[in-house]
Amino acid sequence: MFNYYPAPVARLIDELMKLPGVGPKSAQRLAFHLLNAPDRDALGLSQSIIDARQKIKQCSICANLTDQEPCAFCQDQNRDDKVLCIVEQPRDVIAMEKTREFRGRYHVLHGAISPIEGIGPEQLTVTQLLSRLRESPVAEVVVATNLNVEGEATALYLSRLLKPLGVKVTRIAHGLPVGGDLEYADEVTLAKAFEGRKEI
Amino acid sequence: MFNYYPAPVARLIDELMKLPGVGPKSAQRLAFHLLNAPDRDALGLSQSIIDARQKIKQCSICANLTDQEPCAFCQDQNRDDKVLCIVEQPRDVIAMEKTREFRGRYHVLHGAISPIEGIGPEQLTVTQLLSRLRESPVAEVVVATNLNVEGEATALYLSRLLKPLGVKVTRIAHGLPVGGDLEYADEVTLAKAFEGRKEI
Repeated sequence: MFNYYPAPVARLIDELMKLPGVGPKSAQRLAFHLLNAPDRDALGLSQSIIDARQKIKQCSICANLTDQEPCAFCQDQNRDDKVLCIVEQPRDVIAMEKTREFRGRYHVLHGAISPIEGIGPEQLTVTQLLSRLRESPVAEVVVATNLNVEGEATALYLSRLLKPLGVKVTRIAHGLPVGGDLEYADEVTLAKAFEGRKEI
Repeated sequence: MFNYYPAPVARLIDELMKLPGVGPKSAQRLAFHLLNAPDRDALGLSQSIIDARQKIKQCSICANLTDQEPCAFCQDQNRDDKVLCIVEQPRDVIAMEKTREFRGRYHVLHGAISPIEGIGPEQLTVTQLLSRLRESPVAEVVVATNLNVEGEATALYLSRLLKPLGVKVTRIAHGLPVGGDLEYADEVTLAKAFEGRKEI
């Protein structure tokens, strides 16, 4: 930044600009907000960053982020041990939970295979997944990675890796989103939706 | 938030949602970014909030935010003491400085008169402004509050308050922005631009 700002403000703006989607203007706006906010809010944010970093770890079973060991999903006695849903990120667990459709266990990869970004299976929690499946076999693995190039590559990799273990590997469906208009759907999505048609 | 998240993450998301322009989705994205970021970045942000809050005070002369007393603008010997520019916010001082057109002193009101939000002159630094003008009179006061209803009301109020002190009170000009297209200007701006026409 220019040296128009006093040093502590300039530093705060610089730190805020490291956040995703925050440019110079937003960072300036956030910085002045934090300077004018009540103590409770500004220092509350500062403290909650430290707390979250200190208390949140990866669950040793599913690699989801948690403040318990094992995490609440792995502890829950009412979930089905026979179905395992594999997702890329902890936020995807929340997205699945909000559907209220799935009552099995989770496994979080913490990313997807992406040769361009130099991310291979060894950067993900694949080894942990394999030893988990060996210790407690499941009937079905649902691969719920994103439906983009990296997610699809990861799904293909996992299906080839897991099928030899005798486990059924499924993939969440491609298709038009609910409320989707055929007219505005891209061709690839529409082709996938057609391909995945079901009898009604 | 729902209880899908571990408590420290839920709290971090709640604190982030208090920031202006940050909704639940952005707060979740920022929270996971802060959890995955290197220590230097995440704790750097946390620390810079605390530092800025501790070190930044209002300048006793111009009420701008500063880590020195008086602020750099009030200390600067090369600025013209005879012209005073009144702005709403510290960020407006920066905006004026970037024009490189103004070399006088500043006064920051920390807001504008807004009966709807219950902000009157007593919530602004008007008393401080008056005693400052009595101690060191100036030749001209440029009122550079925003060109909206609150800013205009504040400008009118200040001109009525300051003219009896024998000081020239001016207002920044309304008009079309540089690069502005007549076709897309709103009528009020265009009318103001016409009214403020100058011989060329």
